[in-house]
Amino acid sequence: MEYAAINLAQKFNLFQEHWSPKVIAEMNDYQFKVVKLHGEFVWHDHPDTDEAFIVLEGHLRIDFKDGQLQVGPGEMYVIPKGVEHKPYAETEVKVMIIEPRGVVNTGSEEGELTADNDVWI
Amino acid sequence: MEYAAINLAQKFNLFQEHWSPKVIAEMNDYQFKVVKLHGEFVWHDHPDTDEAFIVLEGHLRIDFKDGQLQVGPGEMYVIPKGVEHKPYAETEVKVMIIEPRGVVNTGSEEGELTADNDVWI
Repeated sequence: MEYAAINLAQKFNLFQEHWSPKVIAEMNDYQFKVVKLHGEFVWHDHPDTDEAFIVLEGHLRIDFKDGQLQVGPGEMYVIPKGVEHKPYAETEVKVMIIEPRGVVNTGSEEGELTADNDVWI
Repeated sequence: MEYAAINLAQKFNLFQEHWSPKVIAEMNDYQFKVVKLHGEFVWHDHPDTDEAFIVLEGHLRIDFKDGQLQVGPGEMYVIPKGVEHKPYAETEVKVMIIEPRGVVNTGSEEGELTADNDVWI
């Protein structure tokens, strides 16, 4: 059989839009998604699940109600379920998100930044 | 509150041994583990779960019964559950593994390369 790895940089080259996660792989009922971030997102939480971020390029700031987090290239963080957070990217940031299938990017705060779910690339 | 990202390179600097995954984060009942690979592992499978590999440094070869896979830096692959595989690293490879808590590195093939489980770093 032919086996081929998934190249993250190649996946990021396939789209330009921000705040619109694209699924690149599944593991059991979890999905790996790549997303480009730029600017300020909305306050939201994911009431039913933790959410992992791995930053591949750029510097991501995540605001919490009681503090702030910086995540640079080669760094990761797991947002605990139910914790309100707001991502901010002063310049473009490339991120891989890992979370259960079905999680919506804006969590419980549906709005204009709510992206289509389960879009593969 | 003080928030701090998890730096993958810093975690890899904390140990030298090969084939001995260290847990660095949890997401729900899944764990993120860093591991250094060098040489040839054993044929094994994980009968109950998929297993995700992200290569951070070096070139990993994964042999399957019917083919072979190369995974380089910035690439990933998800081994489906039940699929026999054998990792091989000609020179040292730094990998992040993502899988459910409790998964043993040698799967159903316990032996001298079986590492202690759930070791945090």
